[in-house]
Amino acid sequence: MTGIKQAGEKKLMLFSGRAYPDLAHEVARELRTEIVSTELREFANGEIYVRFNESVRGSDAFVIQCHCSPINTWIMEQLIMVDALKRASARRVTVVVPFFGYARQDKKHRGREPISARLMADLFAAAGADRIMTVDLHTAQIQGFFDGPVDHLHALPLLAEHVTRHVDTDRLTVVAPDAGRVRVAEKWTDRLHCPLAIIHKRRDPERPNEVSVHEVVGDVAGRTCVIIDDMIDTGGTVVRAAQALTDRGATRVIAAATHGVFSDDAVERLEQAGLAQLVITNTLPNPASIPSGRMVVLSIAPLLARAISEVFLEGSVTSLFEGES
Amino acid sequence: MTGIKQAGEKKLMLFSGRAYPDLAHEVARELRTEIVSTELREFANGEIYVRFNESVRGSDAFVIQCHCSPINTWIMEQLIMVDALKRASARRVTVVVPFFGYARQDKKHRGREPISARLMADLFAAAGADRIMTVDLHTAQIQGFFDGPVDHLHALPLLAEHVTRHVDTDRLTVVAPDAGRVRVAEKWTDRLHCPLAIIHKRRDPERPNEVSVHEVVGDVAGRTCVIIDDMIDTGGTVVRAAQALTDRGATRVIAAATHGVFSDDAVERLEQAGLAQLVITNTLPNPASIPSGRMVVLSIAPLLARAISEVFLEGSVTSLFEGES
Amino acid sequence: MTGIKQAGEKKLMLFSGRAYPDLAHEVARELRTEIVSTELREFANGEIYVRFNESVRGSDAFVIQCHCSPINTWIMEQLIMVDALKRASARRVTVVVPFFGYARQDKKHRGREPISARLMADLFAAAGADRIMTVDLHTAQIQGFFDGPVDHLHALPLLAEHVTRHVDTDRLTVVAPDAGRVRVAEKWTDRLHCPLAIIHKRRDPERPNEVSVHEVVGDVAGRTCVIIDDMIDTGGTVVRAAQALTDRGATRVIAAATHGVFSDDAVERLEQAGLAQLVITNTLPNPASIPSGRMVVLSIAPLLARAISEVFLEGSVTSLFEGES
Amino acid sequence: MTGIKQAGEKKLMLFSGRAYPDLAHEVARELRTEIVSTELREFANGEIYVRFNESVRGSDAFVIQCHCSPINTWIMEQLIMVDALKRASARRVTVVVPFFGYARQDKKHRGREPISARLMADLFAAAGADRIMTVDLHTAQIQGFFDGPVDHLHALPLLAEHVTRHVDTDRLTVVAPDAGRVRVAEKWTDRLHCPLAIIHKRRDPERPNEVSVHEVVGDVAGRTCVIIDDMIDTGGTVVRAAQALTDRGATRVIAAATHGVFSDDAVERLEQAGLAQLVITNTLPNPASIPSGRMVVLSIAPLLARAISEVFLEGSVTSLFEGES
Amino acid sequence: MTGIKQAGEKKLMLFSGRAYPDLAHEVARELRTEIVSTELREFANGEIYVRFNESVRGSDAFVIQCHCSPINTWIMEQLIMVDALKRASARRVTVVVPFFGYARQDKKHRGREPISARLMADLFAAAGADRIMTVDLHTAQIQGFFDGPVDHLHALPLLAEHVTRHVDTDRLTVVAPDAGRVRVAEKWTDRLHCPLAIIHKRRDPERPNEVSVHEVVGDVAGRTCVIIDDMIDTGGTVVRAAQALTDRGATRVIAAATHGVFSDDAVERLEQAGLAQLVITNTLPNPASIPSGRMVVLSIAPLLARAISEVFLEGSVTSLFEGES
Amino acid sequence: MTGIKQAGEKKLMLFSGRAYPDLAHEVARELRTEIVSTELREFANGEIYVRFNESVRGSDAFVIQCHCSPINTWIMEQLIMVDALKRASARRVTVVVPFFGYARQDKKHRGREPISARLMADLFAAAGADRIMTVDLHTAQIQGFFDGPVDHLHALPLLAEHVTRHVDTDRLTVVAPDAGRVRVAEKWTDRLHCPLAIIHKRRDPERPNEVSVHEVVGDVAGRTCVIIDDMIDTGGTVVRAAQALTDRGATRVIAAATHGVFSDDAVERLEQAGLAQLVITNTLPNPASIPSGRMVVLSIAPLLARAISEVFLEGSVTSLFEGES
Repeated sequence: MTGIKQAGEKKLMLFSGRAYPDLAHEVARELRTEIVSTELREFANGEIYVRFNESVRGSDAFVIQCHCSPINTWIMEQLIMVDALKRASARRVTVVVPFFGYARQDKKHRGREPISARLMADLFAAAGADRIMTVDLHTAQIQGFFDGPVDHLHALPLLAEHVTRHVDTDRLTVVAPDAGRVRVAEKWTDRLHCPLAIIHKRRDPERPNEVSVHEVVGDVAGRTCVIIDDMIDTGGTVVRAAQALTDRGATRVIAAATHGVFSDDAVERLEQAGLAQLVITNTLPNPASIPSGRMVVLSIAPLLARAISEVFLEGSVTSLFEGES
Repeated sequence: MTGIKQAGEKKLMLFSGRAYPDLAHEVARELRTEIVSTELREFANGEIYVRFNESVRGSDAFVIQCHCSPINTWIMEQLIMVDALKRASARRVTVVVPFFGYARQDKKHRGREPISARLMADLFAAAGADRIMTVDLHTAQIQGFFDGPVDHLHALPLLAEHVTRHVDTDRLTVVAPDAGRVRVAEKWTDRLHCPLAIIHKRRDPERPNEVSVHEVVGDVAGRTCVIIDDMIDTGGTVVRAAQALTDRGATRVIAAATHGVFSDDAVERLEQAGLAQLVITNTLPNPASIPSGRMVVLSIAPLLARAISEVFLEGSVTSLFEGES
Repeated sequence: MTGIKQAGEKKLMLFSGRAYPDLAHEVARELRTEIVSTELREFANGEIYVRFNESVRGSDAFVIQCHCSPINTWIMEQLIMVDALKRASARRVTVVVPFFGYARQDKKHRGREPISARLMADLFAAAGADRIMTVDLHTAQIQGFFDGPVDHLHALPLLAEHVTRHVDTDRLTVVAPDAGRVRVAEKWTDRLHCPLAIIHKRRDPERPNEVSVHEVVGDVAGRTCVIIDDMIDTGGTVVRAAQALTDRGATRVIAAATHGVFSDDAVERLEQAGLAQLVITNTLPNPASIPSGRMVVLSIAPLLARAISEVFLEGSVTSLFEGES
Repeated sequence: MTGIKQAGEKKLMLFSGRAYPDLAHEVARELRTEIVSTELREFANGEIYVRFNESVRGSDAFVIQCHCSPINTWIMEQLIMVDALKRASARRVTVVVPFFGYARQDKKHRGREPISARLMADLFAAAGADRIMTVDLHTAQIQGFFDGPVDHLHALPLLAEHVTRHVDTDRLTVVAPDAGRVRVAEKWTDRLHCPLAIIHKRRDPERPNEVSVHEVVGDVAGRTCVIIDDMIDTGGTVVRAAQALTDRGATRVIAAATHGVFSDDAVERLEQAGLAQLVITNTLPNPASIPSGRMVVLSIAPLLARAISEVFLEGSVTSLFEGES
Repeated sequence: MTGIKQAGEKKLMLFSGRAYPDLAHEVARELRTEIVSTELREFANGEIYVRFNESVRGSDAFVIQCHCSPINTWIMEQLIMVDALKRASARRVTVVVPFFGYARQDKKHRGREPISARLMADLFAAAGADRIMTVDLHTAQIQGFFDGPVDHLHALPLLAEHVTRHVDTDRLTVVAPDAGRVRVAEKWTDRLHCPLAIIHKRRDPERPNEVSVHEVVGDVAGRTCVIIDDMIDTGGTVVRAAQALTDRGATRVIAAATHGVFSDDAVERLEQAGLAQLVITNTLPNPASIPSGRMVVLSIAPLLARAISEVFLEGSVTSLFEGES
Repeated sequence: MTGIKQAGEKKLMLFSGRAYPDLAHEVARELRTEIVSTELREFANGEIYVRFNESVRGSDAFVIQCHCSPINTWIMEQLIMVDALKRASARRVTVVVPFFGYARQDKKHRGREPISARLMADLFAAAGADRIMTVDLHTAQIQGFFDGPVDHLHALPLLAEHVTRHVDTDRLTVVAPDAGRVRVAEKWTDRLHCPLAIIHKRRDPERPNEVSVHEVVGDVAGRTCVIIDDMIDTGGTVVRAAQALTDRGATRVIAAATHGVFSDDAVERLEQAGLAQLVITNTLPNPASIPSGRMVVLSIAPLLARAISEVFLEGSVTSLFEGES
């Protein structure tokens, strides 16, 4: 053969945007490596500037960014980082988004709306992303919005393990705070072998962010209730669910969710909701804690690090969730 | 200007595969036109042959095909029709699938599964489809699997109107037969202003088609229950839900669903389920009716025809469902 | 460099659909490996379900499927397998189709027809196939329908070697049974150094599967004739060619073809055609043999195995056919 | 409705490259319009410059270019014209190539060759062509190389009508000068109801442009033979076929082909071949005629003009060839 | 023909994001229409919500958005509007960006940088934009970043006309404030027939937003100098150029630019720069004026309106700039 | 794991078109390898034929071609080579074009022009190129025309080092011969720490290849002037610049450019221009030298070889130009 031969090699490189560098550094520590030094700043008019301070050629690049506030800025920063990696000859680019922005706009609730979650998947593909890694998508169908591999991780084992360590599961009822969460709630009941209740919530189609009526379906009197959700945004859903449960005789209410968005005055509202405990992960930056100290933040970094390692080494991500779906 | 000018014109043309021509002809009658004459047959080894018997150049083509059994054959036939339309210079091709095949495989339930619903959207795009029209997708997110307009029609007004004409809604409870249907059930309760119950169904992740435990969440004793679902396939879900409801004291159980798949011995099982009534539409070919005559089939053709007309005339499909989402 | 380095590695993994597992297992044995355990079944309504029972991440995947009856089902199964492999992070997916379905629809014979062979190539690309391996395409131009590498293997050496071992080539005439086969027939005459005859066959353009008149062009009186073809479908072409040759004084007629489709009552018709021998390969499942025992089936598995090995090891597939085109 | 309404209109505009403007002007005259004034020239280093001298916005543009010598220059010019039309907002761009360059490289004859005909289709698509119109492709499969409509016109009726007017068809034998032309020859025999002969030509796979042995298969003694071909390039094929036919007793030999490429000293060779007549069309620029005046050039312009008109007016191109395939 | 015919029609519809609605309304008034009523707001976590309040089906949609601060939010809003239009069946979507964000990152100044201007073009294409309309791109090459028509408008006639009305052109020298503007400056000198000077500005490659040395090349003593630029961002370039010109003896300095970004304390810095006049357009929202009243804002709306009208009516945008390039 | 494992390996293979094989061989020698043996010739009608004489499967292929005269032929040859490599399973294809053809048509200078440089990038992408390597693009924005990595090399260090060795830089003035070169000229002044002058050149927009007026901006009397440019085509720009500089009192004029196109009678014109020295590289074939021996040709091959090696070994190309942008 004419030419030059060389043994093949692969290089994992970790990158982080500016949204939540602490999480990225924690993932790096778990992997016993470091975040690649990157120049990230804004020009005077707000345009983002990116430059990597060392060669990324041929790398298996993982770009970690949290889609927290200001969300459009951080999404754009991640898109620009992907573009720069593609043009700098990274071999493969994995977008790591612990919380996938715009996931709630995963369908047209009414005519003439966008499907923004699909748009985000398309934007990442257009920028040059080869794959996506994320945690607890608002609906699992979003995986199908991306034309490539999506590693969909689950915080359920992490959250459920914490709950079972702190609560007597014999007295526990899992509560879905709305119709969209019943499927996930069933995974909790399957795991914890306990009953289910749901909050029947009617939305006014004209105002998709607001809820009109709350009704408890199922028996909760005398029970410890764990409200489960994928995310806590304004906290309204959880607060109203807790109120409805208490009104129906629940003795104790705790809440568990993967993503702590905590918009507006969510922290204050949750403080006043009378929750015995609020368990979340750090897929988003740590919010100011509830003053009463009843908030627990579990770290998602070990899970992200294991999944990144499996992807890089071409092991199995599925095996991390054996028994889960 | 050098050249030749001519007034613009558009031509609606309707096409039908062989899966369920009766529905296509009913749609054509509603539109006061006819299905375009098309040669459709199979070569000796099962390969499908398609040829249109008149020019389709410049047409706004609507290709109606039901994804009923043998489902892969009919999907392939529709793909081949789309390819032939594209190559014969149709201006725009709309795939009309009253029941969208593979819609239940809209996510990876476990690792190393396909997302077949996305694949179907991709196959239609690859063949040359510009848009999709369909009725009551298994999950609304599937709209986002197609990179183009999807006209998503709803049979709920049709079904609900029938139910309200035949049942005293004061005594009615809407029942979601599993977690995935709770959202749709809420649309029924919002419309009929009546309470909700759900069947809490646990699936064994190893065998996604089977159900292990059924539990009624909500009060159904002394109530007329309407089990709502998007489709009835083997009938198992409805049969077990009806049993559970009866066991919990429901006085009367009816079922309403958009798609009557009726696989295996579904018809017999449903006959024995003791339903007071079973209401479906003809998005799929009429099955052999339940002998007891308690099955009602409502025609979806008027709705399809109105939507096709709105698309062709560039009116509004959303307006057909004002008040629905 | 910041990051983690690792030596590169590649993994060949073989997959098989349900169309003709025996061939796949034979290929696996040749390669001294096994078919990856895969769950393959149908839901009640005929939708196909696929799941791989071990991790396929990073693999160089070869998916073997025969496009035999029911052909649309097996093509769809292979497409779904490819989608699942892509989403499960296989590094490269090669579709292995010993007989490429719809290959005869490789052009528009008349206006408003599809080009289904191109459509099939597009569908495989849409599903995520990186490359195709196939044997004796109906026309070599089909390679150009796929926008990527196609490894086009030839059974001619296999078939010709068998013929030369059993027939006196001095008395042999190669016969192209129709116009489309003359090019391939010339490859046989070049190899065996013997004369050519053709059957001049007129098709009625209205009925592309039927033949109207047969005429022998060339001298066949007193000769042993070998009718060569790429496939035997209903057998009509071979039977009528044999009849025409016998009528023109041929002393003995044998037939050799790569693909034994054997649709309809092909086996019976061939039995009655008076062929001295019928030689095919097992690119399609073994049909019921001609009762008289005059049918010989040569295995294509060793050739497939060698080609898969060359592709995996990045050797040369061309070298397998040095001297052939 | 908010907004501004306006009646739709369409504008046919004809464009021509510099390869063979006479043909383009003849087509324009047939359509009673003119070629759009276009600046076309080369910079000092051979780069081509294109600019249209009037607005092309919204036009249905047809870009006529012959792929004659220097073939790569003219193909590139046409690609650049398409790019300019796309960027200047033409609504639809149809590439009109009476002779499609690189059509003979429609498959890999041997390993590690390109499929240049597919590449050309891809290049036109990349530049922005929506559709292709061409005459008598070397193989009909090339239609499938383009992912869009191809209007494939046939010169057979034109050529055959001329032959039947000048030759007694009772004494006529149609001759395919090589294996690749037998299919086309059968269309001639079907139309003229006369016998077939073929020249069995063996190529050395090492030198694909050369022929080694010529053998007449079929009876030609005492017959008028018409050698049919899609193109005459160096003339070698026709010259050798004529020689072989004469050697085998043909009384008179004529030749008919769509494309007169006439490379090298083709004209001289053909003059000496003893043909009674040579009939071609002007899909390529008129070559220097055979001095003896035995060459007849039929104009393809009326056919192109009718097809362009049908495409523009959304009539039927198929109907131009009713009875042909 | 089977089917239904209807006369073609087209509908112009204007849409506006929230960045600078005044400009959009001014354009609408020029066109004697209105902006389509659109719901635009943010969810609690900053995700943008879009819904059009009337049917947009079949429309020729123009989406006006200024890429001003917060720039990433407004770009994302426009992308989401385009997605919603595509899915709501708009026939054609034109993105109107008077100032194209990220245009300065039009190349890799150093290795491992993105080309963000190309990325923006790709994102708009991914969202579904068919065409782009913009004013005075930072470099004209950016047109080539979009794979479709770009209508590139120029404010030069507007600005130059103002300058010639207020300044004695015999005493005028056109000044390019840096190397990148010399080409544009030459267009001014060609139009005003006056001499050229340039500011030779050295940038430190480590800090692309800063300038190190300024040197006047050309004669400016005793002249009225007009500094021309495409945009004024922090104002630093103009301020330093004005200082250098004054130092070199210029008697009067004015500045003219298309885009008034006015980041940071640009207004104050410009006030103190001693400019006799500062002329800009309103491609970006009106900044607080320079207190001394020496700032003139010319409206770009009439130009945008004329260009939108030409695009809709398929006239000529080029003709708006006859004599300009 | 089921399957077969194998250590990964990569193979660099160098290919050369026929435009300028000497440069390719020089690059190969620098890399201590050889150009892969390739059959390259033309069929009688000018169509190009390509075949590689050894297996290229799995290779990291670099295809070197100079875009010199006949430019369209050599571009097409390179496109066909890329297609053949893609279809022969090369793993990655890098197009190496020392001089990128059509680079000057990088924008629409006027309406209804193509953007041919973008078209070339699209054509290479359509053929299957994964990446591009080139030297001194006419404008750096062209990098953004390709949707993948572009390795943009610079001859400035090579040219500047030669100049500083032969000229007293204290007496040196760098001269930009037109507006488009001022940015590059600033890189020279930054490197050599010497003053700048520019030739203010007005083009007639009707005739983009011609220049009307030349004016020296800056002080050149008594200075040694080095005119810098990216390419010398007809030589007109340099000749007129040299004349203008001499007229303004320059004592000595030299010229330095990366690409020596030397169209028309450029060599003679340059000979008569009175240049003290003309320094170029061999990115294009060596032209006939200026008879007076004042032309110096520096080899670009070592730079290309180092860059190819860095790309293959996944080192850093940026580091080759540390301190340059």
